[in-house]
This record gives sequence, structure tokens and C-alpha cells, in this order.
Amino acid sequence: MTASEFDIIARYFSHLGVRGADVLLGVGDDCALLRPPLGMDLALTVDTLVAGQHFFADVDPEALGHKCLAVSLSDLAAMGATPAWASLALTLTEVDADWLAGFARGFGRLAEKAGIALVGGDTTRGPLSISVQLQGLLPTGQGLRRSGAQAGDLICVSGQLGDAALALAQLQQGQTPEPELRARLERPSPRLALGQRLLGLAHACIDISDGLLADLGHICSASALAAEIQLTDLPCLPELKAKADWSLPLGGGDDYELCFTLPAESADRLPRLAAELDLPLSIIGRMLPGEGVSCRLADGRLYQPSRKGFDHFADS
Amino acid sequence: MTASEFDIIARYFSHLGVRGADVLLGVGDDCALLRPPLGMDLALTVDTLVAGQHFFADVDPEALGHKCLAVSLSDLAAMGATPAWASLALTLTEVDADWLAGFARGFGRLAEKAGIALVGGDTTRGPLSISVQLQGLLPTGQGLRRSGAQAGDLICVSGQLGDAALALAQLQQGQTPEPELRARLERPSPRLALGQRLLGLAHACIDISDGLLADLGHICSASALAAEIQLTDLPCLPELKAKADWSLPLGGGDDYELCFTLPAESADRLPRLAAELDLPLSIIGRMLPGEGVSCRLADGRLYQPSRKGFDHFADS
Repeated sequence: MTASEFDIIARYFSHLGVRGADVLLGVGDDCALLRPPLGMDLALTVDTLVAGQHFFADVDPEALGHKCLAVSLSDLAAMGATPAWASLALTLTEVDADWLAGFARGFGRLAEKAGIALVGGDTTRGPLSISVQLQGLLPTGQGLRRSGAQAGDLICVSGQLGDAALALAQLQQGQTPEPELRARLERPSPRLALGQRLLGLAHACIDISDGLLADLGHICSASALAAEIQLTDLPCLPELKAKADWSLPLGGGDDYELCFTLPAESADRLPRLAAELDLPLSIIGRMLPGEGVSCRLADGRLYQPSRKGFDHFADS
Repeated sequence: MTASEFDIIARYFSHLGVRGADVLLGVGDDCALLRPPLGMDLALTVDTLVAGQHFFADVDPEALGHKCLAVSLSDLAAMGATPAWASLALTLTEVDADWLAGFARGFGRLAEKAGIALVGGDTTRGPLSISVQLQGLLPTGQGLRRSGAQAGDLICVSGQLGDAALALAQLQQGQTPEPELRARLERPSPRLALGQRLLGLAHACIDISDGLLADLGHICSASALAAEIQLTDLPCLPELKAKADWSLPLGGGDDYELCFTLPAESADRLPRLAAELDLPLSIIGRMLPGEGVSCRLADGRLYQPSRKGFDHFADS
């Protein structure tokens, strides 16, 4: 990366997001200097998106800037954390000012909305990939873990599952998804407000990035419990429900909704929370003694996910 | 990345480094949970190494594991920070157990030596590249910046410059560098103890990763000053000095030594510090009013770095 190239990049990325008194020194020295607020723990996450693996190389750069931040914000949401600081490691095949401007716009708009400051970064030449590392704040000793579920807990999910996977399938078949559906794939909304409201309420939480079966499976393993879900209760597009096509809502991935477990006595708090957040919250099943995730059809029979698409979810 | 591949990786990376009470939750949930000690600021840095750009794809994976951590530790050293937490974003073309074991060994040994815990990570499939993000601790309000230099300050460097660049040149010419010289390229030693000792002593500091001219140039810009260095005072291999070949010590890069400025009245503290740290510390020049870096030959004439190798250091 030459100095002039670095200048171009610095121009787009030096001032993204929201800068507070907690940022003593931002981009531009050997390190950023940050002051953690008193009485807060830090939640830290890192995610990499690679061209050709996680996105089409010709995707709209603004959507990509949004998505690579959203994916990591979703991890903060799953812990109930409030976003604080971001660092960005950007590997670029070339320096394309238009592309960078678009990427920075998408990243920056979401950063502002989420209240996070970009405080550090590195830019290198190579095959296009993006690593985003985020830190969030949590009141001392809090934080929603995967391991806290208890037998009898209700299993809940936010939003609607399978939308992103359907949009991806349509794109891969050369179709054009409806704009709203495409936005679910390309501009997911991390459920930060929900995560924060679940602190002290949910027993366990995870964000759904690899598909419900896989991610609920992680709650099961970490909590040493089983999960049973009612397929007819899955929140998904009516056309999928009508066809009883459960593969996308169960295994499609890229949903960036939250899956959490709730003590049964708190069930009555869900509708009000959903109304306040303007976000559907659905009860889809229950945690039980045992292991693994099982799915029941409307008639009570067990549903066997087809092997296709589930090869790598050995534990579901 | 399939579940079984992920298991392989988790086996190598879950327990690297030193785990203290400040790590509430390590690798394996949506986020790591960390508790910053009272009265400390955080120093944060991120660096990406890409195969073919920063290292040969067939480099010894143990050396690579060492180096990709060392490069970022060097940034913490430049701020005077004490290493605390690391996250690792690893993009792999394939899952090769031997390669991963070697990489984890190199990373893990240096992590233990430096007292840093690996608390988070992401593993993806794609062209080989490694992003390391580190956090270090600094007493509140401290931290060595590039911007603190004052006119009259002495310019100092640790160790010997140009070794890594010479080893690289030999490798590129098909020669085999002496093991000690090769280690300077492949297993640099971040100057953490020096950085910590410079807190409250040095006015400005940077680590030399892009070559002395470029990095000292950053201190000049950030401090709005000029720097003048005496080439005969540059610490470098006698064979380079004998040939008056300054291109490697001035611009070779990959040194991972510290360059710092010191008030002239503190000069007498250098020899004792060097002895305590068992690390050469050399005074190579002085900060002056003005801008840019200039170099003087033994006879007092100004030296003009050849364009070759300096194309991208526009400000030097």
C-alpha cells in the first residue's frame, strides 16, 4: 500500500462512527487509546468476511460495509452488550475510491446508528477480505451466555427466519429478490436493543448466523440440555410455511436474529417487549433434559432434516 | 468451515497464552468477556499479514505464528503498554493439522512469554491471511504517542536496523541467511520491556515496521517537527556500515525496533537502561524545527536516499 493510497483510505475511515470521551486517541498512532467506563465489563468479538465465501465480490460496497459491521454487532447483541469501539482490518485487491467511499458510507451509517466508534484499522493489499473486531460494554458480571439455559425454559426467536437464505437462493438462481427480502440478506439489522433488554431476563442467548439448528445446538451443548422445537411455530415467510419447507428457516443461516431461552414464568413479558421494540418475538419450543435439537411436525411426529444442507451440523 | 474442521481449530487455539482473572469468558461464545483493571486505559492495535505480501506462503508455520503476534505486540511496545488480550482472525485455504499445530505453537509460545491471552477468534476459508488484534494496558492518561516530540529531543533507536531486510534480500536471491539473521526476519522480538520503561521518559515513540525513514517521518508529521540523523551513528551490521550501504537500515523495514525521542537531559539514562534490558540503545540524531527527515553523511553533507525502495515514502 503506498502512502498516497493510505491517504485515500485514511480519508474515508478516520472519522467513522460516534466519538465519545472514552476514545482518548483514535486512528493514526501505533495503537488507539481507550478508557473503559467504571463498573463495566467488555464484550469482544471478531468476524471475517471473505469475497467468494461470504459475499459476491461484485456486491454493492455500501451493502457490504453495512453487513460486515452488522454481523459483528449481532454478536454484541447476543451478549446484551452496548456497542463501544470497532477496529477494521481491510484487505483490498486494489484501491478504488468509489468502492471505498461506498463501503465507508455503509459501515459509517450503521456505526452511527449503533453508537460505535471506529478507533483502529489496518489496510493491506491482497484478496478482498474484511475483519471487524468490536468491543461492547456490559454492567459488571452481566452478559448473556450460551451456557445458561435451564430445563423447562422456553425457546424464543426474534424476527423471521429463512428470509436471507431465500434471497440468496434466488440470487444464485439468477432471480431478483424483492427489495425487502434482499435487504434481509444484504443489510441485516443487529438486534442490539433486544439483547440489552434480555439482560437479567433470558437465561441463554445466541445470534442466528449459521442457521437455527446449528446455533440452538450450541446453546444445547453449552448448557448440557436438549431442545425441542415446534415447526409450525417457526416465524417464517407464509410461502415457506404453506409448503412446509423448513430447510431455510432451520438451516439457511445469515438471519442475525436472536435465539434465547426464557424461564416459563416470564412468557407474559414477551408480547409487551415485542411491541416496545416493534419486533416479532416468537416462542418456538422448550429446553429439556438430554442433548441435541429435535423438531416436531404439527401432528407430533419428529421431523428429520434432509442431509442436504445439514452435512456440517453434526450435532443437530 | 465444517464442524469437524472447526473442532480441529478449536483444539489448537482455545487455550493459548496466559489466562488471568481478567478473562471472564474466553473463546467459545458469541463474545469474550473481559474485565479491565481499575485505573488502566486500553491500547488497541490490529495488523493483517497476507500470504505473498507479508510472508512466503511456504514459510515455517511456527515462525509465522510467532511473527504475526510479534508484529502487533510491537505496536503495544511502541505505546508502552503491557499486553493483555488477543483475538485472531485466521483465513485458511485448507485445514492442515500439521500447519495449524506449528502455527499455534509459534503463536502460543510468544503469547505466553508476552503474558497475553487469546480470548477470541474467527476462522474462515479463503486465501491465507491472518489478522491479529491486541489490547494492552496503560496507567490512566499515559501512553507513548507519535505526537509528543519536542525540538532538541534526541532521536534514539533500539537494536540493529536493516537485519530483517538483509535476510529477506538474501532469501529473494536464493541465498540462505545465517540463522541469527534469518531469525531477525522471521522471529522478531517486540521491545515490550523497553516501551514500558520509556513511559514518563520518552516524549514520542513509534515502532519501526516500514523502515526508519518512513516511521521517523510519522513522528515528524505528528509532532510538526523535522528530524536530522547522522548516518554513521545508525546501528547496523558492520558489513553494511563498511559499504556505507544505508538503504536497508533506513528503508528496509520489518525491524520491529523502537524509535523514540528523549529530552537531551535524559541522555545519561540510556546506557544503564540498555544494560538492564540487555538491548543496544543508540542516539542517532535530533529533532529540529521544520519538517521531514534528513540524513547527514560523516563529512556533514546531506545524503539523498535513492528513489528505489523509497517511492512510497512520499514524506521522507
